[in-house]
Amino acid sequence: MEFDKGQLEKLLRFRNGLIPVVVQDRNGVVLMLAYMNRKALAKSLSTGFMHYWSRSRRKLWKKGEVSGHTQKIIEVRVSCEGESLLFKVEQISGCCHKGYRTCFYRAMKGKGLKIVEKKLFEPKSIYGRPQKKPFNA
Amino acid sequence: MEFDKGQLEKLLRFRNGLIPVVVQDRNGVVLMLAYMNRKALAKSLSTGFMHYWSRSRRKLWKKGEVSGHTQKIIEVRVSCEGESLLFKVEQISGCCHKGYRTCFYRAMKGKGLKIVEKKLFEPKSIYGRPQKKPFNA
Repeated sequence: MEFDKGQLEKLLRFRNGLIPVVVQDRNGVVLMLAYMNRKALAKSLSTGFMHYWSRSRRKLWKKGEVSGHTQKIIEVRVSCEGESLLFKVEQISGCCHKGYRTCFYRAMKGKGLKIVEKKLFEPKSIYGRPQKKPFNA
Repeated sequence: MEFDKGQLEKLLRFRNGLIPVVVQDRNGVVLMLAYMNRKALAKSLSTGFMHYWSRSRRKLWKKGEVSGHTQKIIEVRVSCEGESLLFKVEQISGCCHKGYRTCFYRAMKGKGLKIVEKKLFEPKSIYGRPQKKPFNA
């Protein structure tokens, strides 16, 4: 994509260097919410694959760099106030490090949470060991 | 909904008192991204209608309190790490103060943004005068 730095600065409002990003697949499923800094956004737009800023690890990461579960960008939408982004992506396998299609695999039911999505993969088989903390946290 | 304070504290991670919230309609359209504090979340769950914390106005607000374009809650999902929420809602009219179904009514095309949604209403007819800043900013 052909956006340059000047344009992005005009269109978007970063807070503390970050902008929140909603990620949705072709079927309309919301997969995750994460954050980009300017570099992660530029890298995403130039490569066509989603890159994020990890607030906990304080580093840039490419979604799927360990698991292979990459996200190819289909469309980028900008909110009315330029304070958030919505990416439509082609998600390979499941998005969530817990093995589900979406990170939002639990719904509030009664007084607790209920898993409402099917597991697509076993995290151990992908990451070697259970993940304590995902990159996007 | 029957969640109590203790449960929410266990399930969710607020940062600076806030949690980001993705809002989606019945058809899978992502309508907006906004923030809730604990009070806004409790009020949303107890009334069944979306309430947010406005960071710019520093106040709790009910979506649709001026426009009538309320959001009735259908389902609440919690992210894997409890750091964000996904609400499915019944949106009355359009979500965006600019007159569109969704706040994400513009897509990046070439070197600019293109409006890719139809206008549902004229903001002037709802708010009396053009809105400079929406509540959710």
